[in-house]
Amino acid sequence: MTTEIDTVFETALQMRAEQIESLLRRLLDERIRPGEIARPDHLLAAMRHGVLNGGKRLRPFLVLESAALFDADSDAAMRVAAALECLHCYSLIHDDLPAMDDDDLRRGQPTVHKAFDEATAILAGDGLLTYAFDIIADEATPLPGDRRATLVLALARAAGPGGMVGGQALDLDAEKNMPAEDGIIRLQAMKTGALIRFACEAGALVAGASVADRDRLTAFGEAIGLAFQLADDLLDVTADAGTMGKATGKDAAAGKATLVSLHGADWAKRQLGGLVAQAHELLEPFGERALLLKAAASFVASRSH
Amino acid sequence: MTTEIDTVFETALQMRAEQIESLLRRLLDERIRPGEIARPDHLLAAMRHGVLNGGKRLRPFLVLESAALFDADSDAAMRVAAALECLHCYSLIHDDLPAMDDDDLRRGQPTVHKAFDEATAILAGDGLLTYAFDIIADEATPLPGDRRATLVLALARAAGPGGMVGGQALDLDAEKNMPAEDGIIRLQAMKTGALIRFACEAGALVAGASVADRDRLTAFGEAIGLAFQLADDLLDVTADAGTMGKATGKDAAAGKATLVSLHGADWAKRQLGGLVAQAHELLEPFGERALLLKAAASFVASRSH
Repeated sequence: MTTEIDTVFETALQMRAEQIESLLRRLLDERIRPGEIARPDHLLAAMRHGVLNGGKRLRPFLVLESAALFDADSDAAMRVAAALECLHCYSLIHDDLPAMDDDDLRRGQPTVHKAFDEATAILAGDGLLTYAFDIIADEATPLPGDRRATLVLALARAAGPGGMVGGQALDLDAEKNMPAEDGIIRLQAMKTGALIRFACEAGALVAGASVADRDRLTAFGEAIGLAFQLADDLLDVTADAGTMGKATGKDAAAGKATLVSLHGADWAKRQLGGLVAQAHELLEPFGERALLLKAAASFVASRSH
Repeated sequence: MTTEIDTVFETALQMRAEQIESLLRRLLDERIRPGEIARPDHLLAAMRHGVLNGGKRLRPFLVLESAALFDADSDAAMRVAAALECLHCYSLIHDDLPAMDDDDLRRGQPTVHKAFDEATAILAGDGLLTYAFDIIADEATPLPGDRRATLVLALARAAGPGGMVGGQALDLDAEKNMPAEDGIIRLQAMKTGALIRFACEAGALVAGASVADRDRLTAFGEAIGLAFQLADDLLDVTADAGTMGKATGKDAAAGKATLVSLHGADWAKRQLGGLVAQAHELLEPFGERALLLKAAASFVASRSH
């Protein structure tokens, strides 16, 4: 069911994606900055290949819209959003490596280690991760220094060993030892949940919002992070069902446990409905300003249909 | 020639190494922190393997001694030094990977991808890089927020595509296309020089020293970074001369151009002498307080003898 707000949302998502794309392009074209020696062209080309690939830019959208709730400085929000996208793309480059998921294609294009080589892909990922913190900490991000430090810290926690990188380590382990339900939940909260949560929290941090507001956005981020993963797992089942004629997908074929494989698709759809309702309720205090963020929650959950 | 100050230096270096080792151990034993989900044990073990390996901890020493010049907060300097060491160790873990230098041993121990596996080594490196920024940005580093942000930025620039990671990319390229002298100088300034420079600059940043003092420490760091690399290249020639009975080493055998291979060992020794004199002169204004840092410059250069 497509309602008016969904159409508005899709237009807004695309507009935001273009804005972010333009900033990312500028940031990744920079060849030298104070305190640096000229960045090698080949490395920059690999970094651009990994980032400028037509992604939906959902995480940046969440940063920008959560920042807009609080009338935060929009230039600052844009830079934080771009930094988060650089970090997200580094994680995809490293995930695709032969030693990890060994993927040759992403969005129909050769992955970075295919288009360049493995060593360059490792370094392009390292470079993007490092640059993400640079972009936030830089005085060009028009925020007081302590707020820039808080954002660096929150991003490092979301992305590090107690967040995304830890989730990736658990995921590798899960291929050998199938985790129980609590293990799956932990893995997903770290691997995909942590960055989505940061994206929502970041808006409050950029604005210097109250702890209560920050907590509200964090809870919203956690709800849609769960919904995102559940929708993904559901998509894995239903998408393949269309092409393979049966209700088993890539994860199931790989013997990978998901909440959908444990509880079934109907349960997952009910859960999704509950998560979206919870996410919407968390944003009630913001009234009409939160319409696009609410639509984002619905969008994230509806990827399975 | 061993003088009294050299003996004092070696004792101080060892004492500092033990202090840093103890802080690193505490930081790498942390299983969960605010905003995180519990870090996977396996990943933490790989991170510890890559860091707690008995290094000399030269870079942390430079941070601590440059901070001491300005009476900077020593807890803050310790945390910045530990962060830098985590970052340095991530770079070694990734450099050792099969797709990069493909080394099985480091300091006589199996490298991380040998002791664990390749995927875990990639993630341990990613985790350490991310954690380095966390450690600095954290309020547990007792500095005003804007100073923490400045330190994050300086470290990101030294470590990123316009610094260490860029140098590593140039180094890979140099194996295929032998660079000319200016290319070698650029490569080395990025690959090893940038972090050593940051180590010296960091003391001034922790202290919030004047721009003039920061510039002085930066110049000192650049001089000893050059000396470090020259001594390394010289060591490659002279160390192998002893065992192989001729004056060609690993780099020469690999067809790798260095300033030593271009200009010869005698030229390199004269250069080293000049760099040490320059480094010492830069520290003159600090008088006796700079004795250990001056000794560090001599130590770095004398690794070739």
